[in-house]
Amino acid sequence: MTQLKNDLLLRALRHEPVERPPVWMMRQAGRYLPDYIKLREKYDFFTRCQTPELATQITLQPVDQVGVDAAIIFSDILVIPQAMGVEVLMEEGKGPSLPKTMKTQADIDALITTGAEESLKYVYDALAMTKRELNGRVPLIGFAGAPWTILCYMVEGKGSKTWDKAKQFAYTQPALAHQLLQKITDITISYLKNQAKAGVDTVQVFDSWAGSLSPADFKLYAQPYLFQIADALKEEVPVILFPKGSWYALKDISESSASGVGIDWCITPQFARELTQNKITIQGNFDPAKLLGTIPDIKKEVKAMIDAFGVQNYIANLGHGITPNVPVDNARAFVDAVKEYESKK
Amino acid sequence: MTQLKNDLLLRALRHEPVERPPVWMMRQAGRYLPDYIKLREKYDFFTRCQTPELATQITLQPVDQVGVDAAIIFSDILVIPQAMGVEVLMEEGKGPSLPKTMKTQADIDALITTGAEESLKYVYDALAMTKRELNGRVPLIGFAGAPWTILCYMVEGKGSKTWDKAKQFAYTQPALAHQLLQKITDITISYLKNQAKAGVDTVQVFDSWAGSLSPADFKLYAQPYLFQIADALKEEVPVILFPKGSWYALKDISESSASGVGIDWCITPQFARELTQNKITIQGNFDPAKLLGTIPDIKKEVKAMIDAFGVQNYIANLGHGITPNVPVDNARAFVDAVKEYESKK
Repeated sequence: MTQLKNDLLLRALRHEPVERPPVWMMRQAGRYLPDYIKLREKYDFFTRCQTPELATQITLQPVDQVGVDAAIIFSDILVIPQAMGVEVLMEEGKGPSLPKTMKTQADIDALITTGAEESLKYVYDALAMTKRELNGRVPLIGFAGAPWTILCYMVEGKGSKTWDKAKQFAYTQPALAHQLLQKITDITISYLKNQAKAGVDTVQVFDSWAGSLSPADFKLYAQPYLFQIADALKEEVPVILFPKGSWYALKDISESSASGVGIDWCITPQFARELTQNKITIQGNFDPAKLLGTIPDIKKEVKAMIDAFGVQNYIANLGHGITPNVPVDNARAFVDAVKEYESKK
Repeated sequence: MTQLKNDLLLRALRHEPVERPPVWMMRQAGRYLPDYIKLREKYDFFTRCQTPELATQITLQPVDQVGVDAAIIFSDILVIPQAMGVEVLMEEGKGPSLPKTMKTQADIDALITTGAEESLKYVYDALAMTKRELNGRVPLIGFAGAPWTILCYMVEGKGSKTWDKAKQFAYTQPALAHQLLQKITDITISYLKNQAKAGVDTVQVFDSWAGSLSPADFKLYAQPYLFQIADALKEEVPVILFPKGSWYALKDISESSASGVGIDWCITPQFARELTQNKITIQGNFDPAKLLGTIPDIKKEVKAMIDAFGVQNYIANLGHGITPNVPVDNARAFVDAVKEYESKK
């Protein structure tokens, strides 16, 4: 393995001292970058994901152009239902849809489970290729969707504001929901282990719809599966959990085998630290809409954020994905502000 | 004035002892009721709002059919921008749209302010008529949108997942945002005072998109205006604030002149009580998706909710509006479970 020239992210995840926090941005390889848009015009979504050369090229764009401290592989969380034999359609600008939704025991029995992750070889190839191209410049992050979030899509069939159908499924057929969650969990663990073998330095598990659940339901339907994944991966790579909106779970997560936890901007850094007692590295929590402000304001707000979290055990990031309308210069200002932090102390 | 036969809601808001918590449901007059759907097929949205006979009929439906302890007038939060001279379109099932959005000083200068609330006479007429028809059976709740939420629609022009444009407007043109928020606040205060004159027993201020703001931005763009409204109305009627998602503001709100605060299901009753120290009556926080479960489950969960909040200083409600797909029997089971609580102790 090539030695990493910039291992800030991994040091932060291992609770080792850093000169300044590492910085990356969720969805950093994506729609705000003109070079990404050019590729999007030529190749459809799954071609971009499934062609290692394209996925690698897209993954590297923000490293080269914005200067982030980590690359995150360009892929999608819905490759897991695909691997389970569920059709996933992706219409540009409209979000995903899954025409066949999960309703019954028969639907769940029909899912491909054993070896499902083997159909995702294109991801492992893209990871290996990206790792080679990075040549040790920065760490490479692998990822997967969390079981609750994947269940949401598999039951609802598309995005939703309230995830009513997914929740109705869980609340009225809990045994079936837990069967499905366990199947997703098992495949996700194998999938992430394969990502580790392909060379990722850390993995993030995105529980984008965790925040639709009450604290009690999060403990039933989300947390056990997140923790199974963290437990299964911890010997291979550090795990970052990002249950968006589920601030109420921070204490439990800080006591899990995860190394990092992502938070959104709807909790103060102080309270997040209070709940987690520095037992876990915190990642976040810049409001992505602040990237639409002026560059001096971005720099001021980034400084205030790092002041509040502190330099150690912290990864500077957004609290959610970067939006398509952010000027590249503003994204760069966010990254630069973190890099300049050291000298401002 | 007719003496109220059921004043549970008002006693709960005044911190007076109650035998059991009062219960009502956000959006209780609406799309899950077959009789409402019949009216919707005959009259468009604004006809239903602006015809006092129709608004009254719709407002009374859940009192008669579901047995709630309060009526809430059938209307919409976007009547305020309408009164300010902004066109609001409402396409059935698609949500509102405002073709002319606020961008500049000139846009804000052009808004009707002085006396704008006078154009909303149809609301006051509907309130007076509803009050007569209720004949003291249960209290009548008036309402308005909170200034931040109204700004969101006036700047964005339609619903949004992230409210990027609204936030960009506030973050990059704060002086303009505060001007607009103040104008909305002033009209909202006059509007709610007129509602009090027309006979409402309490008012609720819906800050549906408060939860898109960080704690620091909530304190800048939402809280001061909510508190102005609560201060201005407190001598007339008790005020309930519902900044959805903004659990982080609960302590401050408990120390404001509001009598009640609504919360969603993403915070435990215990923690909400801890933050508010029984200084304010809490309203909520049943997950509306739980109304899609079985009736025995609904009854069990309602009991657990009241056990957790306690009977006093509490209003049983959902944590967000009831969804159209809820069977009427399930809505009734929710209400009945609260009414039966007393005997179960």
